[in-house]
Amino acid sequence: MQDHRRLGRELGLFDSDPLIGAGLPFWLPDGSAARHQVEAYLHDLERRAGYRHVHSPVLGKRRMFELSGHLANFADDMFPPMAVGEDELMLRPSNCPHHAMIFRARQRSYRELPLRIAELAPMFRAERSGVLGGLSRVRQIALNDAHVFCPEEQAAGEVARVLRLMREAHAALGLRPASVRLSLRGPGKAYGGSDASWARAERLLRDALSSSSFSYAEAEGEAAFYGPKIDVQVADAAGREWTIATVQIDYHQPERFDLSYIDASGAKAHPVMIHRSLVGSMERLFGHLIELHDGAFPVWYAPVQLAVLPVGAAHDEAAAAFAERVLGAGLRAEVLPDGSVGARIRNARRVPYLAVIGDREAADGRVALRLRDGRRLDPMPGAEAIALIDAVASARSQGLLPQAR
Amino acid sequence: MQDHRRLGRELGLFDSDPLIGAGLPFWLPDGSAARHQVEAYLHDLERRAGYRHVHSPVLGKRRMFELSGHLANFADDMFPPMAVGEDELMLRPSNCPHHAMIFRARQRSYRELPLRIAELAPMFRAERSGVLGGLSRVRQIALNDAHVFCPEEQAAGEVARVLRLMREAHAALGLRPASVRLSLRGPGKAYGGSDASWARAERLLRDALSSSSFSYAEAEGEAAFYGPKIDVQVADAAGREWTIATVQIDYHQPERFDLSYIDASGAKAHPVMIHRSLVGSMERLFGHLIELHDGAFPVWYAPVQLAVLPVGAAHDEAAAAFAERVLGAGLRAEVLPDGSVGARIRNARRVPYLAVIGDREAADGRVALRLRDGRRLDPMPGAEAIALIDAVASARSQGLLPQAR
Repeated sequence: MQDHRRLGRELGLFDSDPLIGAGLPFWLPDGSAARHQVEAYLHDLERRAGYRHVHSPVLGKRRMFELSGHLANFADDMFPPMAVGEDELMLRPSNCPHHAMIFRARQRSYRELPLRIAELAPMFRAERSGVLGGLSRVRQIALNDAHVFCPEEQAAGEVARVLRLMREAHAALGLRPASVRLSLRGPGKAYGGSDASWARAERLLRDALSSSSFSYAEAEGEAAFYGPKIDVQVADAAGREWTIATVQIDYHQPERFDLSYIDASGAKAHPVMIHRSLVGSMERLFGHLIELHDGAFPVWYAPVQLAVLPVGAAHDEAAAAFAERVLGAGLRAEVLPDGSVGARIRNARRVPYLAVIGDREAADGRVALRLRDGRRLDPMPGAEAIALIDAVASARSQGLLPQAR
Repeated sequence: MQDHRRLGRELGLFDSDPLIGAGLPFWLPDGSAARHQVEAYLHDLERRAGYRHVHSPVLGKRRMFELSGHLANFADDMFPPMAVGEDELMLRPSNCPHHAMIFRARQRSYRELPLRIAELAPMFRAERSGVLGGLSRVRQIALNDAHVFCPEEQAAGEVARVLRLMREAHAALGLRPASVRLSLRGPGKAYGGSDASWARAERLLRDALSSSSFSYAEAEGEAAFYGPKIDVQVADAAGREWTIATVQIDYHQPERFDLSYIDASGAKAHPVMIHRSLVGSMERLFGHLIELHDGAFPVWYAPVQLAVLPVGAAHDEAAAAFAERVLGAGLRAEVLPDGSVGARIRNARRVPYLAVIGDREAADGRVALRLRDGRRLDPMPGAEAIALIDAVASARSQGLLPQAR
């Protein structure tokens, strides 16, 4: 496994600049193209699973974070407040207070629950510059986030649903978790909420883990300040573990913000708030995916899916025309620039498919695909090659050829 | 025309909360669904037009904004700096410095130009709370933004390409500009760059406007601090004009950041930087679209494309099953809750299609579509109704029936 920091820069996936600052990487076009595919996939996966997406601002008044408990329990990780007119605004350290505001923007009835609010949006952590590095630990975090608001009796079922959806997303991305932990309170830290609600939340998570047949270890002191959580861990090139997915039970913020719904009997009740992320932040996720796949991503989110290699200058036009057709089909293609054939094939070794265009191919419009695992396919019409790549990408297959049905 | 602030809240498209603050609206699920469609359309339109998308952080060091000229010319509109560790970080007032950093992250050759860097990402303006309102004027702005880096001789052609792309996007959205203006320098304001480069930039914009047959008015004092611009204006319910799209020529920032590429002769040269937005910010765009369409959006970005109305409780199951099929086809459907048939039809009057499910429809699986303009179609198989809606949405048609071919 290679360190993603070196590989990601070498492959032109992301970079940074001292004028922007530490822990604030930017994504170059190839990294961004891969991320866009993953974000679009997650959006559709969540939509089909009954999530409703929202857009909320990254700023909020200091008072909101006092109420949420973040300032009492999490202030060290937050950016300082900014005075703007009469307001004191702060960058959010997490999206939950904003989603709580969205919940309370309307009178809610038990008929609308579970209400699953999703958003992939930035949040901010004032990490010390010493701990920052690459994509794993950053100051601006694009979390694949959601909050499920539901009555307590629905919570165990909702947690189990989240664990199932997590498994589906991990399989599509080719992601292999190293371990699962149940993160509980520990000594010497501040937590919100009552002992009774912590005990209820812990029981709920244990039940969901058992019914989903997850084996897990307990980790004291790793809970969120508002509740216990299930953390799915992955290991990096150096063997360190990072949390890549999480489900958390929160009785605390619904109380603090006085969130309520009208239950079947017509009475007001607090919902439980489930915080969850299927794949964590785009930064940490890609830090992991770069190392896991050694930069050779599955076809569906590879930045370039097909590299077109004109053997000589006489084939440039045919190569450009074929790349244009591939782009028109909604796939991502690139014509490899000048250089020796051998060097260009080597440079494109992480690209899933390579089409070499020489005299024969330019003349008859057929292409011979080389797969990055070394296999070569017989020449086929261009349209057939495009259909093959499209089939593999659409199925989010981890292989390079369409599945036999 | 109704004011979008009232209509947007009434239709559940967006809302705000005093705990978050003024000028920081959030998008409720229906508003977000419409915005998501528009963002996905723009991403694809730009991709096909040769833009490369990036993701950059919303923060940067104070020094970057000193170099860009923002602190000298635009400080009043910026949020104050935040001290984090040894760094002084600021929320960006625009995306251009970050895109300049992305340009200079690699050694660039004339062969790569024009390099078109696109991003739909937040930027921040510390507007006084008195001028804030609805979606038109906000403190966090998700701009459909891009910067084209090219040699001066390509600039006029690139501006003309932008104007063409703008027309295409406006037609798809059903957006009708009120006027076009050429925004020039004016007295009493600070500007960067030399008189010679301002004159060159102005000539370039005039040429592009003429060759694209746009009629326009000149507006002194409306230029950006770094260069002149073309602004496309729309009018709101109160008759006020807002800028919804823009193209700007900038010789200033490439110099300040010492951006360069290697030209055909092997020498270093500064690129021109073209700032452009096809449809402005998502906030202002939707403020306008809500008023323009009176909340009845074109089918392709309507939050709910099909409302399913079960006549009585006996038809709930058939209605839910049909809505499920529509969702599975990638369209957006909703079953209308309890109430009288008349009231429910009235409430759904902005939804493009309505399917009433009574005894006959539940029995034979056919649906009778009502269009929001009052027309009723003969009962047809469910699959046919789905195909009809899908055809109209995919074509981004402004009508409710597929175009005759």
